[in-house]
Amino acid sequence: MTELEAVVARVDERVAPDAAERERLAAAVDELRTRVERAVEAELPSEVAAGTDVLQVGSTARGTWLAGDRDIDLFVRFPADVDRAALERYGLVVGRAVLPEGHEEYAEHPYVTGTFEGFDVDLVPCYDVEDASQTRSAVDRTPFHNAYLTERITPALARDVRVFKRLLKAVGAYGSNLRTRGFSGYLTELLVVEYGGVVPLLEAAADWQPPVTFDPEAHGTRDHDDPLVVVDPTDPARNVAAVCSAANVARLQHYARDVVDDPRTELFFRGEPAPLDEQAVRDHLERRGTTPLAVRFEAPDLVDDQLYPQLRKSLNGLGSELDRLGFGVLRAEACADDHAVLLFEVESATLPAVERHEGPPVHVRSHAEGFFEAYVDDEGVYGPFIDDDRYVVERSREWTVARVFLESDAVFDVALGKHVESVLEEGYEVLAGAEVATLAEEFGVELRTYFEPQP
Amino acid sequence: MTELEAVVARVDERVAPDAAERERLAAAVDELRTRVERAVEAELPSEVAAGTDVLQVGSTARGTWLAGDRDIDLFVRFPADVDRAALERYGLVVGRAVLPEGHEEYAEHPYVTGTFEGFDVDLVPCYDVEDASQTRSAVDRTPFHNAYLTERITPALARDVRVFKRLLKAVGAYGSNLRTRGFSGYLTELLVVEYGGVVPLLEAAADWQPPVTFDPEAHGTRDHDDPLVVVDPTDPARNVAAVCSAANVARLQHYARDVVDDPRTELFFRGEPAPLDEQAVRDHLERRGTTPLAVRFEAPDLVDDQLYPQLRKSLNGLGSELDRLGFGVLRAEACADDHAVLLFEVESATLPAVERHEGPPVHVRSHAEGFFEAYVDDEGVYGPFIDDDRYVVERSREWTVARVFLESDAVFDVALGKHVESVLEEGYEVLAGAEVATLAEEFGVELRTYFEPQP
Repeated sequence: MTELEAVVARVDERVAPDAAERERLAAAVDELRTRVERAVEAELPSEVAAGTDVLQVGSTARGTWLAGDRDIDLFVRFPADVDRAALERYGLVVGRAVLPEGHEEYAEHPYVTGTFEGFDVDLVPCYDVEDASQTRSAVDRTPFHNAYLTERITPALARDVRVFKRLLKAVGAYGSNLRTRGFSGYLTELLVVEYGGVVPLLEAAADWQPPVTFDPEAHGTRDHDDPLVVVDPTDPARNVAAVCSAANVARLQHYARDVVDDPRTELFFRGEPAPLDEQAVRDHLERRGTTPLAVRFEAPDLVDDQLYPQLRKSLNGLGSELDRLGFGVLRAEACADDHAVLLFEVESATLPAVERHEGPPVHVRSHAEGFFEAYVDDEGVYGPFIDDDRYVVERSREWTVARVFLESDAVFDVALGKHVESVLEEGYEVLAGAEVATLAEEFGVELRTYFEPQP
Repeated sequence: MTELEAVVARVDERVAPDAAERERLAAAVDELRTRVERAVEAELPSEVAAGTDVLQVGSTARGTWLAGDRDIDLFVRFPADVDRAALERYGLVVGRAVLPEGHEEYAEHPYVTGTFEGFDVDLVPCYDVEDASQTRSAVDRTPFHNAYLTERITPALARDVRVFKRLLKAVGAYGSNLRTRGFSGYLTELLVVEYGGVVPLLEAAADWQPPVTFDPEAHGTRDHDDPLVVVDPTDPARNVAAVCSAANVARLQHYARDVVDDPRTELFFRGEPAPLDEQAVRDHLERRGTTPLAVRFEAPDLVDDQLYPQLRKSLNGLGSELDRLGFGVLRAEACADDHAVLLFEVESATLPAVERHEGPPVHVRSHAEGFFEAYVDDEGVYGPFIDDDRYVVERSREWTVARVFLESDAVFDVALGKHVESVLEEGYEVLAGAEVATLAEEFGVELRTYFEPQP
């Protein structure tokens, strides 16, 4: 056994669910399945009930879950001729009967979520369709994914999936939610199956040359502009890794090299960083000599998959504008809890009153004359003068203080996330310099990650 | 007569030498010519004297000089078989005999310069060669230029040359010295001949689309990478306008449009700007909100044609470095009198302690690993972390204060003019902010041009 194989085995000792956990889980699933079947019989019209079944899906269905991840996913699969409104109604009726203490959540359609004997249970209605390309909503694909993997995930591969997931979690690259933009559970299992194990997967990932493409069923029908492409074995048009960011692909490559070069278990168990306190933030700012500016506002009431794309769009919009205005953004980050924060660290907090504005080459006569006429009588500009073959003026800068720009209505001229924009219109606060350290109270962990960045 | 033609006529009334000046000049030239001929007879070996003649060249030879410009150029033309050392010796012997009060100057070879009856006289030895492509030094071309133009410059064209020169002088574009990098006298005359007058020349220049090429003898043999190309009618390989900068071509275009659109004599007589005083410099700096930095040193003991290229090289070298270091040069200028000054107006006088340093994409394995290893154990950097597909660190900036950089030995790592570098090694002073206003005492005119720039 190689050193890396030994590390994989040791990691799995810590993450494999033990027999007791597996038995408790199996018992809970049996009981829930029985309850669902009873509720279907009891609550639904008999012609619907006759065509409806219940499926356990997800990692707990395939033995690929990590000890302590207590998610049970049960899909109630309805005949395709049930209309959507009815499906939603039936789904909730069954869900409430099975989990009377549960509550409704809403993805593409509503489902019931609750706890049962210590497990977190999702009861999700879906359609029974011919194949995965016929799906009417994203959840209809799940039974196909489950069937595909169930056939292929041997106990040995299940172990390797667990170890691979553990590494991705440790380095912050696990999860296809739009906050993380990492590797989904389905994607990790497909990659382990593709390579026949986590060791060959990590050895290969260390040398990937993105874009990297896999098409296990050799049926892909489209080009994808993504660094990692894994054509869905159940849907030729879909890239399972579409959401996975370039940074997370690079992150996997980095840690794959690290663990292959120097196999050790610690890498798999890096915990969440400890929060940074105010004094430590102030020390970093003093050492860095930058001007941090934080736009702080009430977090919009959105699920993370809606919130984070909007925060990112707002961060990019304001960051690009600060750059364009000449303040020089060294780094920027968004985070959210009760408040949301857009943090920009700029190189110059203030700028001169004038900025260079290049006109056209003098020989491009009509443009050049227009430029010259526009400025020749303007007392507020220096020039027009000639530099090389062009007219140039030095005109007043619109914004000389970054903070003043962020406090102005000009922020609304920038492309912001829609709900972020609405919330900002209600009011926000701009913190500058050492004031930013007060964010440590709410965002100590995020500030640790920001000021002590790791791959 | 058009308005522009009327303006040309009125300008010439002021710049044409009057009859008295012409007569005095002609008398002086006659006397000098006689003295040269006598000196040649008396002082040189008879076989050399037999093949030697004297030529009047330059604007005073062709009636194209401006009233008050009192330069007489006499060329003593020796047989081509005289060796170079002998030519230099003979030239000085004749020169001293003709202008006993004169002194020697040195261009490609030594010549004698002095005053005679109120005129500034240059007595220049040259070779009598077959044609201008056979020249042994640059001055050998002059007789060919003179012969070419003398045939073509009618009194009417001589008038137009004077008016064109007057415009170029007024706007600072006259002179092929390496300080001005403008239009030489020869070039102005060729352009006026080419267009058949100053009015069609100005009308055409207003619409030039550089590169603009003229080849009056249709014999050009080379490509020239210059905005204005006038193939020398006496030398197919030479661009007469080679020294003329893009800015001066653009400047001619600008003022040509101005005078064609709104003919007026004032444009032709714009004088040197009045010096700016210290308080006015401080007012400009306050209004602009920039940080000016001036490197001041003893001007190297060089003629302008050597000094200004070196100042410009030093200015570009240090300016590029200040930009590269992140200080953001808004504008820069060099000037010289007893002292020389390199003035840089920067946008940020100080910068953060850290700067972003992008590494290779993580997937370029050997480079990426090298980058990562170089920084992973460096306590002085933030990171390496991953941004998009790359490693990034934030490392210490070498220079956070522009003034400190300019005061350091690091200025000698920049490409400077050779003699400028030597002088700087002896010592220099850096003025910053309001201290720069003290330069007004020596450079008030230059500071007026800098702070009130015109096309």
